Amino acid sequence: MSQLSFEFPDGSVKQFDDGVTSEAIAKSIAVSLGKKAVAAKVDGKWVNNDEPLHKGGKIEIVTSDSDEGLSVLRATAAQILKMAIANDFDNIHFGESDADKDGFFVDTDKPDTQISVDQLSSLEDSMHKIIKQDLPIKVVFLSAADAAKVAGDDPYQKELVKANEVNGQVKFFQIGDFQSIAEGAVLPSTGKVKIFKLLSVAGAYWQGKSSNPMLQRIYATAFNKQKDLDADLEKRKEAHERDHRVIGNELDLFFVDPKVGAGLPYWMPNGATIRRTIERYIVDKEVANGYQHVYTPVLANLDLYKQSGHWDHYREDMFPPMDMGDGEELELRPMNCPSHIQIYNHHIRSYRELPLRIAELGMMHRYEKSGALSGLQRVREMTLNDGHTFVALDQIQEEFKNILNLMVEVYHDFDINDYTFRLSYRDPKNTEKYFDDDEMWTRAQTMLKGAMDEMGLDYVEAEGEAAFYGPKLDVQTKTALGNEETLSTIQLDFMLPERFDLHYIGEDGKQHRPVMIHRGLVSTMERFVAYLTEIYKGAFPTWLAPHQVKIIPVSQDKHLDYAKKINDQLRALKIRSSVDTRAEKMGYLIRDAQTHKIPYTLVVGDEEVSGNSVSVRKYGEQDTQSESVPDFIDEVSKDIASYSREED
Amino acid sequence: MSQLSFEFPDGSVKQFDDGVTSEAIAKSIAVSLGKKAVAAKVDGKWVNNDEPLHKGGKIEIVTSDSDEGLSVLRATAAQILKMAIANDFDNIHFGESDADKDGFFVDTDKPDTQISVDQLSSLEDSMHKIIKQDLPIKVVFLSAADAAKVAGDDPYQKELVKANEVNGQVKFFQIGDFQSIAEGAVLPSTGKVKIFKLLSVAGAYWQGKSSNPMLQRIYATAFNKQKDLDADLEKRKEAHERDHRVIGNELDLFFVDPKVGAGLPYWMPNGATIRRTIERYIVDKEVANGYQHVYTPVLANLDLYKQSGHWDHYREDMFPPMDMGDGEELELRPMNCPSHIQIYNHHIRSYRELPLRIAELGMMHRYEKSGALSGLQRVREMTLNDGHTFVALDQIQEEFKNILNLMVEVYHDFDINDYTFRLSYRDPKNTEKYFDDDEMWTRAQTMLKGAMDEMGLDYVEAEGEAAFYGPKLDVQTKTALGNEETLSTIQLDFMLPERFDLHYIGEDGKQHRPVMIHRGLVSTMERFVAYLTEIYKGAFPTWLAPHQVKIIPVSQDKHLDYAKKINDQLRALKIRSSVDTRAEKMGYLIRDAQTHKIPYTLVVGDEEVSGNSVSVRKYGEQDTQSESVPDFIDEVSKDIASYSREED
Repeated sequence: MSQLSFEFPDGSVKQFDDGVTSEAIAKSIAVSLGKKAVAAKVDGKWVNNDEPLHKGGKIEIVTSDSDEGLSVLRATAAQILKMAIANDFDNIHFGESDADKDGFFVDTDKPDTQISVDQLSSLEDSMHKIIKQDLPIKVVFLSAADAAKVAGDDPYQKELVKANEVNGQVKFFQIGDFQSIAEGAVLPSTGKVKIFKLLSVAGAYWQGKSSNPMLQRIYATAFNKQKDLDADLEKRKEAHERDHRVIGNELDLFFVDPKVGAGLPYWMPNGATIRRTIERYIVDKEVANGYQHVYTPVLANLDLYKQSGHWDHYREDMFPPMDMGDGEELELRPMNCPSHIQIYNHHIRSYRELPLRIAELGMMHRYEKSGALSGLQRVREMTLNDGHTFVALDQIQEEFKNILNLMVEVYHDFDINDYTFRLSYRDPKNTEKYFDDDEMWTRAQTMLKGAMDEMGLDYVEAEGEAAFYGPKLDVQTKTALGNEETLSTIQLDFMLPERFDLHYIGEDGKQHRPVMIHRGLVSTMERFVAYLTEIYKGAFPTWLAPHQVKIIPVSQDKHLDYAKKINDQLRALKIRSSVDTRAEKMGYLIRDAQTHKIPYTLVVGDEEVSGNSVSVRKYGEQDTQSESVPDFIDEVSKDIASYSREED
Repeated sequence: MSQLSFEFPDGSVKQFDDGVTSEAIAKSIAVSLGKKAVAAKVDGKWVNNDEPLHKGGKIEIVTSDSDEGLSVLRATAAQILKMAIANDFDNIHFGESDADKDGFFVDTDKPDTQISVDQLSSLEDSMHKIIKQDLPIKVVFLSAADAAKVAGDDPYQKELVKANEVNGQVKFFQIGDFQSIAEGAVLPSTGKVKIFKLLSVAGAYWQGKSSNPMLQRIYATAFNKQKDLDADLEKRKEAHERDHRVIGNELDLFFVDPKVGAGLPYWMPNGATIRRTIERYIVDKEVANGYQHVYTPVLANLDLYKQSGHWDHYREDMFPPMDMGDGEELELRPMNCPSHIQIYNHHIRSYRELPLRIAELGMMHRYEKSGALSGLQRVREMTLNDGHTFVALDQIQEEFKNILNLMVEVYHDFDINDYTFRLSYRDPKNTEKYFDDDEMWTRAQTMLKGAMDEMGLDYVEAEGEAAFYGPKLDVQTKTALGNEETLSTIQLDFMLPERFDLHYIGEDGKQHRPVMIHRGLVSTMERFVAYLTEIYKGAFPTWLAPHQVKIIPVSQDKHLDYAKKINDQLRALKIRSSVDTRAEKMGYLIRDAQTHKIPYTLVVGDEEVSGNSVSVRKYGEQDTQSESVPDFIDEVSKDIASYSREED
């Protein structure tokens, strides 16, 4: 019998007989490992624990207590779900299925009907039956012809058979008489899966392309322990309640129409009001802090991005150039830096002008993969709160502190508290990956760290995480779905000033090279509004709320005029107020204002009319309070002016 | 001798002998016409007055008192200028030349040197010498080979020879021994040109393409009478002083870099401040008037513009689609209407919501010809103050009045007075050109006219000038260069609601089709700022001025702190104030503030420090006035709040 040679993650190499299983290999290392092993990867490819191996290679044993172990459990559950669907529905087609640390899904397509969320519970029952039988799950290799027979007239399975053929064979899992193309690795029998939950049904394009048919994706999850499932369901519920896409829909903030353009959001009036308020706030704040705001075009000759280096290093995230004839190629900008360099270079600059701070609400386009797109969080057209300051080398630390101070002020106004600072340095040993100027790096990194320390801010340091062109500070936050996002960034750049030959005339009358600092305080308008929606759970503070005051007349006949009079007073002060004139019961109208998370609901009846007062109910509170009209106007005006921070 | 047959503009036809001249033809009609005739066009092609004709056709006699007659005079002057240049400069190359109702130009290229504006006067002298000799100008037809010899090593003339070859021959003008390719028609001798002026020199790309070499264009003009030239020069001087491109450069408002993108302006901080102020003003005004502002993407699937009809009817003004793979083509929008239809269609609409007013500062892209581009007036990327209101048929008149009222208010705030209203109707006989719905047209046109009359506004009516999809009102103004531009527009649209199947639920519970009204109050930000720059001659009213207050300390040593204190007070109120800290003489600093057309210059010295006062000099006034600081703050605040309209 021939011998197979396996290399383990620690570099050691061992020989085993041909036909050995990964389970046996695991046991041979340690009994405990053998017990925990659920599958393995050989040269990166999944194999079942009991699958005879006929080729050696780099091997990783996957244990039940790891994330990958969970995904083996879930891949098994996915097979059971497929079998249950095939049992319960005639003539159903299967797209792809997948399992990972977040759960699993199965794509299906039934031309004449649709699986609805109501049917998930009966599908769960069918799965439990299959589990109870504890059917063995075996690996079988079918010839291409036999595999095609299994696929039958299912167009997706036909394509998958083709894509999965290796040396004329396609790997399948077999459970009873149910056969399905192998995806990942699975446990040896259906009885190994006990704790699972089918979660939801949603549309998903075949292979993620919007030009393909839309299939139905069943989302689900599975765990080893009930308490883990319970915790996960609770987390999902909370995430769903905070998810800016859910709230965005409920509060009518924005929508995306994939047929008209994936990743290209339409901001409805409510969302647009929030965005406009933020835009005006941040522009005013920056202007007050010495920034000069500009408007620069989203299009430029491709040569500009060749000179900047974006075309060489960032091309796959860029939109295709437009051929305008005569050799002119226009490009949608992926970043605003070259535009601001144009502004800098339009005049000869003097040391007296430094730090020169250029800022813009700059629209950019990046071609994100369609699978990565998500509501306002990941989009293809975005408007960045962008700024570039041009400084002399010895001004870096001071300017870095200026930016940090401004950032902290802005965070305070938005009540943002849950974030971490990360300083990214170069790896000094890796001279290839970083712009070559030892002294510059050392000085710059020292200055950044010095500024953080001076300001008493906590931070983590990450060596080797800097950009090619300089060290940076990132501010990291988490989305409702648990993804880490960068909210703000300050990046030093030694490279672009070289590439565009920037200079300023120093006090000595000679030309000097400035350093460029890229900075974004609140990221893109899209990402920031997504982030705020999630941290506020849709209950925007008064200054940002799309509707700040809702006035409800007790009787539409008797009190409407009074309601309108107060509304006019408020609107004259640019307070976003409206009267609810619908002929509905007062209780319904009050509940509706609460559902829309409107900060102030005013009820006006006989008593209020006679006393020139309003009955005020704040969002989230149960009781109402009678206030004179001037007092209420004063209260709401102060609320707005203070960014709804009572302690201010 | 064979006979030629000529058809006159009035449709009559006459026969003449082969070899007849247009001069003889003119004389044969009337002696007076013979005297005034300077050239002719046969089948649209220019012929000299004394050029023997060998082919009949449609003939137009061009007389000296017409615009075209002037262009013949100027084409003659252009030939004289070319000859003078060829005499005075060795080895010079010639690009195109042209003459029209505005003047004439000659393009030249001299690789090793450049013709400067200082040399124009000596070129004029050389032209006068040629004119004094009264040299005959003859038409000669050269063989292609001989024409190529004349072109020699001049690359542009070589191309022009090729482009002008007809049946192996190229038409030239010959003056003495100077030969040059015939462009237009010219007078019979150099002595006919007496009154002319060389105006300026500027760069111009060969054939108007930015990828071609840049030539030097000499601009000039010629007239029959000295007083016409004098009046024209005065008009040019005034236009130059008002030209937003000239002022834009002087006040550092914006620039265009053709290498990075023709028609893609960069707004410098000063211009951006003006634009931002206008944007906030107009958005606030619209929101107060019931508009719901949105943000919608500049990109959409090309299908959207196929459905709207833009791709069929407007394609040549659109940018090329971007092929994203998978059959997806994304297009930069040429108009915002389809985007706002997306907003309308995102919900089922009720009659209660009408008129539904959607507005946006909507960025659009139109591929204007490079020759048509001009500063901020004609650009390829623009942001339109756009709005669409969706109304029931019987709401048209009321909503039209609402929009007109808003427009008139806005004009008042900007102190815009010089404009005309033009109502454009369909031509009821031309059923092909207009959307087919007689009743709709009749009702709509009656309602528009009714609204204008009710409001007591003057207007002209233009039958057959309506858009395909409905009648419209345009507000016309003139640029400094005398071009007519549309500042505002209100257009009814019956077609897009059909194409996108828009509806609302009426009071009867049934579906009804709304009418769409396209409206722009202040045009694009680009065109509006260009227009305002010209009507204000750069002296922007305080509320729009990029710099509102400049504070000049009498002594930088003694009074700087006081100046800064006042500056801080003003800036805290968001007044755009700054201190001039330059170590220059006070007189120079005051003049500099006036040159930059800053509304308020404050001078502060000992007297002001002790009296907590400022010495105020308003822009354009000679005297200064002492005011207490609170009084000044009050004055400037009122000035800004009232849009600098003292009578308000």
